[in-house]
Amino acid sequence: MAYFQARTDLALEAREYVEDSNQELRGVEVEEYEDEEGKMHVTKVKITTQNGAKILGKPKGTYVTLEVPGLCECGENSDVGEDHEEVAWEISKQLTQLLPKDKEPYQVLVVGLGNRDVTADALGPAVAEHLSVSRHMVQEYGALGLPKESHAITSCIVPGVMAKTGMETAEIVKGIVKETNPDVVVVVDALAARSSKRLNRTIQISNTGIHPGSGVGNHRNAIDEETLGVPVVAVGVPTVVDAASIVMDALEKMHKELQETVFLQARDSVVLSQLHNMYVTAKDIDSTIKRISFTLAEALNFTFVGGGKKEHKEKM
Amino acid sequence: MAYFQARTDLALEAREYVEDSNQELRGVEVEEYEDEEGKMHVTKVKITTQNGAKILGKPKGTYVTLEVPGLCECGENSDVGEDHEEVAWEISKQLTQLLPKDKEPYQVLVVGLGNRDVTADALGPAVAEHLSVSRHMVQEYGALGLPKESHAITSCIVPGVMAKTGMETAEIVKGIVKETNPDVVVVVDALAARSSKRLNRTIQISNTGIHPGSGVGNHRNAIDEETLGVPVVAVGVPTVVDAASIVMDALEKMHKELQETVFLQARDSVVLSQLHNMYVTAKDIDSTIKRISFTLAEALNFTFVGGGKKEHKEKM
Amino acid sequence: MAYFQARTDLALEAREYVEDSNQELRGVEVEEYEDEEGKMHVTKVKITTQNGAKILGKPKGTYVTLEVPGLCECGENSDVGEDHEEVAWEISKQLTQLLPKDKEPYQVLVVGLGNRDVTADALGPAVAEHLSVSRHMVQEYGALGLPKESHAITSCIVPGVMAKTGMETAEIVKGIVKETNPDVVVVVDALAARSSKRLNRTIQISNTGIHPGSGVGNHRNAIDEETLGVPVVAVGVPTVVDAASIVMDALEKMHKELQETVFLQARDSVVLSQLHNMYVTAKDIDSTIKRISFTLAEALNFTFVGGGKKEHKEKM
Amino acid sequence: MAYFQARTDLALEAREYVEDSNQELRGVEVEEYEDEEGKMHVTKVKITTQNGAKILGKPKGTYVTLEVPGLCECGENSDVGEDHEEVAWEISKQLTQLLPKDKEPYQVLVVGLGNRDVTADALGPAVAEHLSVSRHMVQEYGALGLPKESHAITSCIVPGVMAKTGMETAEIVKGIVKETNPDVVVVVDALAARSSKRLNRTIQISNTGIHPGSGVGNHRNAIDEETLGVPVVAVGVPTVVDAASIVMDALEKMHKELQETVFLQARDSVVLSQLHNMYVTAKDIDSTIKRISFTLAEALNFTFVGGGKKEHKEKM
Repeated sequence: MAYFQARTDLALEAREYVEDSNQELRGVEVEEYEDEEGKMHVTKVKITTQNGAKILGKPKGTYVTLEVPGLCECGENSDVGEDHEEVAWEISKQLTQLLPKDKEPYQVLVVGLGNRDVTADALGPAVAEHLSVSRHMVQEYGALGLPKESHAITSCIVPGVMAKTGMETAEIVKGIVKETNPDVVVVVDALAARSSKRLNRTIQISNTGIHPGSGVGNHRNAIDEETLGVPVVAVGVPTVVDAASIVMDALEKMHKELQETVFLQARDSVVLSQLHNMYVTAKDIDSTIKRISFTLAEALNFTFVGGGKKEHKEKM
Repeated sequence: MAYFQARTDLALEAREYVEDSNQELRGVEVEEYEDEEGKMHVTKVKITTQNGAKILGKPKGTYVTLEVPGLCECGENSDVGEDHEEVAWEISKQLTQLLPKDKEPYQVLVVGLGNRDVTADALGPAVAEHLSVSRHMVQEYGALGLPKESHAITSCIVPGVMAKTGMETAEIVKGIVKETNPDVVVVVDALAARSSKRLNRTIQISNTGIHPGSGVGNHRNAIDEETLGVPVVAVGVPTVVDAASIVMDALEKMHKELQETVFLQARDSVVLSQLHNMYVTAKDIDSTIKRISFTLAEALNFTFVGGGKKEHKEKM
Repeated sequence: MAYFQARTDLALEAREYVEDSNQELRGVEVEEYEDEEGKMHVTKVKITTQNGAKILGKPKGTYVTLEVPGLCECGENSDVGEDHEEVAWEISKQLTQLLPKDKEPYQVLVVGLGNRDVTADALGPAVAEHLSVSRHMVQEYGALGLPKESHAITSCIVPGVMAKTGMETAEIVKGIVKETNPDVVVVVDALAARSSKRLNRTIQISNTGIHPGSGVGNHRNAIDEETLGVPVVAVGVPTVVDAASIVMDALEKMHKELQETVFLQARDSVVLSQLHNMYVTAKDIDSTIKRISFTLAEALNFTFVGGGKKEHKEKM
Repeated sequence: MAYFQARTDLALEAREYVEDSNQELRGVEVEEYEDEEGKMHVTKVKITTQNGAKILGKPKGTYVTLEVPGLCECGENSDVGEDHEEVAWEISKQLTQLLPKDKEPYQVLVVGLGNRDVTADALGPAVAEHLSVSRHMVQEYGALGLPKESHAITSCIVPGVMAKTGMETAEIVKGIVKETNPDVVVVVDALAARSSKRLNRTIQISNTGIHPGSGVGNHRNAIDEETLGVPVVAVGVPTVVDAASIVMDALEKMHKELQETVFLQARDSVVLSQLHNMYVTAKDIDSTIKRISFTLAEALNFTFVGGGKKEHKEKM
């Protein structure tokens, strides 16, 4: 069916659309809850079988989604989002559960994916800007080079995009991983949602890595444990919607409002080739990326280096 | 009618939509031609009466549109568009016709509108980066400070956007104009088109200035001769489409393909408030802005400072 | 005497060099103290007479200097300096004493001077990036547009540098001030020190504005109360040393070490024209500017909008 | 001798200082000439023995230096330097002689070294911005993906600096080379000169790679054929002088002017530790980097992809 092709990087949305279509959904476990203060809605989707992976169009693994309405709203100053420290702690808590537990300090390579010259795609590079790295200090000074109470030795790369490097991002990351031997790779990326209402307020954390294009099948360019040889945790926030998805979404809305099935027929048949390679984003995407990248970087710094308010640490 | 509200900054498109709706169109003169080599299509729309202005939703004046399919295609290297020098000369030729003729050198202030931190909106600031300015040299050294054969003494400002300055752009420009007394102001801006097929391949040059918002009526924030006291020529390229326009466009296409009037009803009635403040742009908008800004800056430098290949000069 | 020509934007240093030369220093009052925790050294230089102004080469007025060794050292994460909140509060406290007291909320225009494309000169533009502005909200919504407990209605401009605008910065600022009528202007700028030991650890706050070039005399391009018609407070941090100053400094050091007066003769006579338009800066100037701009912006936000930890507010 | 430690990345300067000190210089061959139009001075230094390498503090190999006074002067517009196409062709000609001759198209990886956030160090990243890459097109479409007449299949990486990545640049490049198998690596970097008169007007092309730190000896972090397994050609332009070098230079000048040997004693003995990690650069370094990077990128595009004016091609 055509609407399956509407791209979403969110397992949460893939599941919604499958449910809406009344397909049976085996091999997928879902758990949902609100955080104590009701500021975030947490959904965990576990894809446990190949069948589940095929239906959702996503690899097997765990996908944790935090929905945080205030994520990109102006917080105490224009640089940060509302409740950014609380949100950073929650992200850090969820991320920690997907990271290696058998070694401390472990060595982590953070990869800031995306194109720093396209605002909506610059989330990964922007997070990298705020990250504290320590691997070179440890290489030089041994344990003394590591900030006290650090859980991890950190390094970071912004590989750039294929149109500018002429290389698959996976090739670049693979080469660096082989040469520097991290225990785990954390990739940060801007995602595409199916629905505009998810934009800039949803964080997905998964242990399945990144699969450009079809999700399952084409493994050549994946950035995952299979290609890198070490676990890969992905952290992403949807910042764009494919232009074609916007039209499909609108048609579904019209179907509901006007009760004419022709809208669904149109959704499934009309070719929107003119919208190929077009995406929809918010007008204030610059301040959005600034705030979200600040919160994600804080989450990563909390996770690897520590710091932050005492009351949050105690909650952990 | 709802679809009138679909935003377009192009007089060309406004006219098309009026024609499509079979309204009578008085007070508007149109002239069209191809350039000699068939690479550009030129359309001049002259709005000559208040009635014409009201119907098209644009102020009285001249709007020249160049349609150049290769504008953002990769040229001899990845920095410039196809035929960029030819295109720059054509823009320069059209622009020259809208500039003051009674004084040489005249003094021009170029204003690079838009938000440098949002790629699709950064056209004005990007053009400003490539511009040669001379006013300070003339202030210091008199006529000796002006490059030989220059037609104009140039200055340039990138005022930034209201969300970051707390000021209307019109206020900033007005203050600078009063203080520095240019003979003419040229504003460069990224525009919104109604149709995605206009994006990144259409250049509009007009002598009516810039009217944020409704076009006619709200004059407080206009950047035009009335508010600044000197002629204002605007040069723009559409780089985005309002997200709601994409849906309306698709509905019109469906109407044509499927012959169901319900699509037009939907277009005129369905509320797309979720798409408010969302826009559609191309995935490679960074290289697009790079190439177009290079060509526009070349056009302005040709116009004010001179230079370029001899064969082009002779054509002028 | 030649060494007077060594440029310093710090009144503190001007005074030191005058003292070292055993000149009598009338018309200048000095007060010094450490803050309670010994983290900052505060010096207030008041130039009270034209004679004092002439000897120090600085206009009459108050110059407060905070020396903070940790200003650009890595703090709790790599984005911020050590003790950045404490330092921001101290800056805010000193700045508040130089601001208008007769009106609240007053309207303030912050001007981020300097060249955003030259790292060492990008302090002003970098501070502007982090600033919260509210004037446009107040224009639109009246008092409701102002964040609660704000002391000021804020606007902000990054005028750019003359080589790119073709205009004196003073012209641009003057035009905007006339058009938008702030009660006070706060300019933020990167300064030049005479000695490398002041770099990136000294903050100067003065109520005398900015005087490019000679300091006293040439008023054409000053950004001060005389030219703008409203009080001008300047906040700056030295990030560079003139290359010629480095040589002079070294010669003075050699004189002390080797006790040969020929070094002082050389200092006063040797022409260093090759070093004209060259400056000295630190290799890690990017992280330095990032941290200092963050602290200065925090200081301005505390001052105008409020916020920050309760214990600091109580100290004020 | 202390002054040997004054850092220069230019073999040309290393040789001058050795000659000035009247040391015998064996194992070093030098050839010099002007180009036909007298716009460039070309010097080839060949270090042929380990002894020559030791004396000059540079590895064995060929170092071609072009001295081009107009390199960073404003050319036909403010974006490009004087005679930039001619200069690009000369660079391309010299570079071609150091590249592999046995295979066409060969695969080249261009590495833009340096810190994009520090203007004077951003030459490598700026060149990368202007480069045309084709490797991904060839991977996708085979020979059809390669622009006609191309000599090379190109890819490009900007690895960033250790303070931000936590990794040695050599590690990153080595990993990518192993994974993508180029036939040759071309590194572009901003260099340090000993004398300010070389700044921004000298291009060095060598087949010895890059050796951070001491030049000979410490091989761990070298980017050269030994560590990468493929030939490495380095292209660089000095944009900075170490602050300590400026003082030494001035002392030598004073020695010549004042004929006091105490200046040479000072040069060799005085400790300038306060100047550690400080460098000297030009005030207009932003436009300098813009122009030089444009010319270097043009030179690389000419070399790998072709293009440019016919008359230049015929000269080749």
